[in-house]
Amino acid sequence: MYTYNYLLDFTRSVFKKMGCSPEHSEIIADVFMAAEIRGHPSHGMIRIKDYFELWKAGRINVSPKVRIVHESPSTAVVDGDNAVGMVAARRSMEIAIEKAGKSGTGWVATRNSNHFGIAGYYAMMALNKDMIGICLTNANPLVAPTFSISRMMGTNPIAVAIPAMEQPPFVADFATTPIARGKLAVAEKKGEKVPFGFVQDKNGKPSDDPAILKAGGSMLTLGGDRIHGGHKGYCLSAIVDIFSAVFSGANFGPFVPPSVAYLPKLEKKVGEGTGHFFGAMRTDAFQSSMEFRKKMDEWITTFRSAKPAEGEEKVLIPGDPEREAEARIMKEGISLVPAIKDDLVKISAELGIIFE
Amino acid sequence: MYTYNYLLDFTRSVFKKMGCSPEHSEIIADVFMAAEIRGHPSHGMIRIKDYFELWKAGRINVSPKVRIVHESPSTAVVDGDNAVGMVAARRSMEIAIEKAGKSGTGWVATRNSNHFGIAGYYAMMALNKDMIGICLTNANPLVAPTFSISRMMGTNPIAVAIPAMEQPPFVADFATTPIARGKLAVAEKKGEKVPFGFVQDKNGKPSDDPAILKAGGSMLTLGGDRIHGGHKGYCLSAIVDIFSAVFSGANFGPFVPPSVAYLPKLEKKVGEGTGHFFGAMRTDAFQSSMEFRKKMDEWITTFRSAKPAEGEEKVLIPGDPEREAEARIMKEGISLVPAIKDDLVKISAELGIIFE
Repeated sequence: MYTYNYLLDFTRSVFKKMGCSPEHSEIIADVFMAAEIRGHPSHGMIRIKDYFELWKAGRINVSPKVRIVHESPSTAVVDGDNAVGMVAARRSMEIAIEKAGKSGTGWVATRNSNHFGIAGYYAMMALNKDMIGICLTNANPLVAPTFSISRMMGTNPIAVAIPAMEQPPFVADFATTPIARGKLAVAEKKGEKVPFGFVQDKNGKPSDDPAILKAGGSMLTLGGDRIHGGHKGYCLSAIVDIFSAVFSGANFGPFVPPSVAYLPKLEKKVGEGTGHFFGAMRTDAFQSSMEFRKKMDEWITTFRSAKPAEGEEKVLIPGDPEREAEARIMKEGISLVPAIKDDLVKISAELGIIFE
Repeated sequence: MYTYNYLLDFTRSVFKKMGCSPEHSEIIADVFMAAEIRGHPSHGMIRIKDYFELWKAGRINVSPKVRIVHESPSTAVVDGDNAVGMVAARRSMEIAIEKAGKSGTGWVATRNSNHFGIAGYYAMMALNKDMIGICLTNANPLVAPTFSISRMMGTNPIAVAIPAMEQPPFVADFATTPIARGKLAVAEKKGEKVPFGFVQDKNGKPSDDPAILKAGGSMLTLGGDRIHGGHKGYCLSAIVDIFSAVFSGANFGPFVPPSVAYLPKLEKKVGEGTGHFFGAMRTDAFQSSMEFRKKMDEWITTFRSAKPAEGEEKVLIPGDPEREAEARIMKEGISLVPAIKDDLVKISAELGIIFE
């Protein structure tokens, strides 16, 4: 078991050693740790190796100048200068919040960025500004549009954070696929099948093989097959891709650059780097902040009082599972599986720091 | 077979006879006909009876004063004054477009409205203004949150329209449930079962009975059960509900008023009427309009060239099926099933106009 502070300090040191400024290293470590404590280790310490390898391959810029390249009173396009994604994303969300301060809402599309960790982190930045936060990003293509076998889209997540008054905030943060890719890897390692509706084979036939991506298969969109509304998940994933990449001038769909160094750079590009989209809306752009927050409390308590199905304990509000994880993990500590620990020990040796 | 113009004229006359102004009757008829020609008759002529009955019951206002009750440079809250939904919605989207003209983007939350037809209509209003259009609405509660058996949400649709240059626009318009409620009714009439993943019984157990809503059952969210990502559909539907009703001060979730007169008014209300949410974003708030549209063309042609799965003809872009329907229906005419025709004949007799 590791403490939060130990892993935070270590992560900060890794990125400082890679040449990131203290300020940027702080931001990056904060996002990594948010993933760990919110119970999404798939976006936590396990990913440090990916960034480290991209840096060694010279594919990521540790001294970026993140800047606005186009704007209107309520919008901006930000060029991330090939930064570690967290650095470009955090600055972009700050700009969205600044714009919202003046115009009621602020919307930022970001290009030339990289993998940025958990989307929910940036949406939640709005909460203590008395704003609603939104964050979208595209990602490496693994997912086929409805009726297709071509991998054209990523798991393209959507995060929305909405403040309440006495109730904790509503925080939704979800991929536009039935499951995360990491769950396929876990099932594969355990030698298990997955339910139908997650993946298809290279001809587009239903499959329950979690390793099918290695054999030309692809992931399905939220909804699964056409009968179960998979075309709606395709719409959703396409909207995230267009807002993130067409709005900003980043690479869209199949052209999103790999977030790992063991995959070669793509030959064709249609824009700059990975794309994100951020939104901030003042609660008092719609009602008095007090009225808004009270009504949000009422929404939350209404949904929390929904009757559970047979065999279920309670109905959850988006954000509840992560809050429960955070309370537990901050008390119990963070455990790392041996393979991740070994990776971090190797990285620390290469960088001349200590991890144990 | 009916011509477009015949049904347009008739619909306009119905609402004029009900007391709507010529201008409002024009708007309402335009939205009804858009549903018919885009191949969504579930939101077309079949619904005229519902509005007619609500009007007879004094539950809808045919002389509304739709007005802004709160605003910021990029936002407004509109009170629909219990108007026919189309009237409140069309004015709200116009305000979003006006706001976007000045601030880059415009966002309007609308309360005290009613059922407004197809969401895509309002999103598409942005297209010839060189803007992206967005429209959300809440709806009568039929859908249970994950782990619950309480009907707390409607089929809460999302519509997004994005202009291109030489390609037709991207128009997504979809419910946040696997299927529309209308499809359950059709299966029930045919005596058919539905696939698992659409509905559950009163205890929350999977069901394939399309009539289960009458026996305490509920519809599932997009994704279906928890294993297949139904909790993500719950998040999505909840976001639509909050943006439409908490932002505006309308009734949320289980308190959305019935859109049909044969259901009694609800005893409890937590706001005013039904809620909608509208967005408009200038393409040149992000890039030059030309660059934006060119890139959108590139996105569309890329996705159109995705390889079809075995047995599938082609990969569709959101909006393709509706465009194909429109071309066909404008040529062939609009057919109405006998039951709908009978309803319209009865309504026309009551109002002293002709339908044959």
